[in-house]
Amino acid sequence: MQVIAAAGRIADSFPVRNLNQDTITQAVLAGLAQTPEPRLHQLMTSLVQHLHAFARDTRLTEEEWKFGIDFLTAVGHQCSPTRQEFILLSDVLGLSMLTVAMNQDKPAGCTESTVFGPFHVEGAPRFELGADVANGAAGEPCLVRGRVRSLDGQPLAGAQLEVWQADAQGKYDVQYEDLDHAQARGILLADAQGCFEFRTIVAEPYPIPTDGPVGELLRATHRHPWRPAHLHFRVAAAGHETLVTHVFREGDPYLDSDAVFGVRQSLVADWVRHPDGSFTLDYEFVLNRSPA
Amino acid sequence: MQVIAAAGRIADSFPVRNLNQDTITQAVLAGLAQTPEPRLHQLMTSLVQHLHAFARDTRLTEEEWKFGIDFLTAVGHQCSPTRQEFILLSDVLGLSMLTVAMNQDKPAGCTESTVFGPFHVEGAPRFELGADVANGAAGEPCLVRGRVRSLDGQPLAGAQLEVWQADAQGKYDVQYEDLDHAQARGILLADAQGCFEFRTIVAEPYPIPTDGPVGELLRATHRHPWRPAHLHFRVAAAGHETLVTHVFREGDPYLDSDAVFGVRQSLVADWVRHPDGSFTLDYEFVLNRSPA
Repeated sequence: MQVIAAAGRIADSFPVRNLNQDTITQAVLAGLAQTPEPRLHQLMTSLVQHLHAFARDTRLTEEEWKFGIDFLTAVGHQCSPTRQEFILLSDVLGLSMLTVAMNQDKPAGCTESTVFGPFHVEGAPRFELGADVANGAAGEPCLVRGRVRSLDGQPLAGAQLEVWQADAQGKYDVQYEDLDHAQARGILLADAQGCFEFRTIVAEPYPIPTDGPVGELLRATHRHPWRPAHLHFRVAAAGHETLVTHVFREGDPYLDSDAVFGVRQSLVADWVRHPDGSFTLDYEFVLNRSPA
Repeated sequence: MQVIAAAGRIADSFPVRNLNQDTITQAVLAGLAQTPEPRLHQLMTSLVQHLHAFARDTRLTEEEWKFGIDFLTAVGHQCSPTRQEFILLSDVLGLSMLTVAMNQDKPAGCTESTVFGPFHVEGAPRFELGADVANGAAGEPCLVRGRVRSLDGQPLAGAQLEVWQADAQGKYDVQYEDLDHAQARGILLADAQGCFEFRTIVAEPYPIPTDGPVGELLRATHRHPWRPAHLHFRVAAAGHETLVTHVFREGDPYLDSDAVFGVRQSLVADWVRHPDGSFTLDYEFVLNRSPA
């Protein structure tokens, strides 16, 4: 009897008959007691406690529970290889930035991190230094220059910089269904002095996508969807912690109301406009050494 | 300038620059302050507080955050018109039963509720009283008989009963990809005395689906996936609260370790075996009056 044999294996399990709203949390926690990996046990225990506390504090109704199920299902169905609606949800609820902030225990002087965002994709094209990563994206031309260094001032030769940004229409390349190549997205390697330089377009403010369930949530809570203009960077160098951050544009009207709570003053920089109408941006990235 | 106009509309918004792990929760809550619907405001405020408290209590790492994003995305992608993985997740975390229990404030004597489960589908076929709802599903034959009444003893003539159950293989019809019709699932109307009778198959214990992310979670936490044998019922009658419940089978080895925490002693009944090998189940449903 397959069933009886299986039942035998749960002989030391927990009794779960006749649970009520006061006893169910302890029963679920008891059910997690055999989790072999201590960190997973800790995470699941805390998750169950907080999830149940949310339901209890709000006296969640069955209709609201069903609404939540349907909402999460819609978020899941919006996710695709080029759209990460769960990251967007985490971003607008401040969970992403909280997680970044908690893990931001770098020494003063290192470039600060901010949210990863939902528009990173693997496999960005590689460019030579000086190349135009815009690759046809609409926008005003801009030259971005800078250096990657260690906290002690040592240049990080050959550091890898990945950059991605929205175009003048406020859209990332992956948001255009009919676009078959990367635009305003690329990977470069710094030179022997840790210096880099590339051409791209000027960053502009844009609304996060509002055509999915996260957009519905923003409308229902009367929140605006705008993010201040920024370039995304992921900077990696041997022996150092990989940095995921943005450079934000000074003067942007959304710097103090970023829909995803990601702005740090140290990441705000000047996009300098020149008499010929072109722009330059200079920025230096300071990476923290990896733990020994 | 579209951007400037939009910025004007958020003039009374909240300052969100340079948030850290200690200030971000208040900033997110301030951002929800304009939510027009008071109940949504209450739910979102509590959700953000508990979500952030979970991240803070566990000092969630960025890798764990990403794992959570990927897990929820996989749960969403597993959801289809015939598979509700988010309900399954809510069930195994005890959230479903907690929600049912909190909203279970019926007078003593009414039939208790339990979880809805992930296998209900709309549009079940209708049957005459006495018909065989198994409709070809494998299992030992069983006659189910009973009555639907009000708490004061009044029969609820014409009450609608929807029943659904797994077959002898432990599978619901919707779990068979090549099955083109409903099995062991149907809708019946009680007669003028509130009585009903139908043929079906005997309920057997079964594991919840373990081929998706919820199955991974159960394996990682060393929990078994079994549910004790049961019939699902949804019973509706004019002037009364609709009842969503199960009838569980006495003697089942999983009554005290239901993977979704749904067993209540008052819902456990005898499947009586007769000398000819057939089974009968008798059960009475007592519905609560709707609030006046």
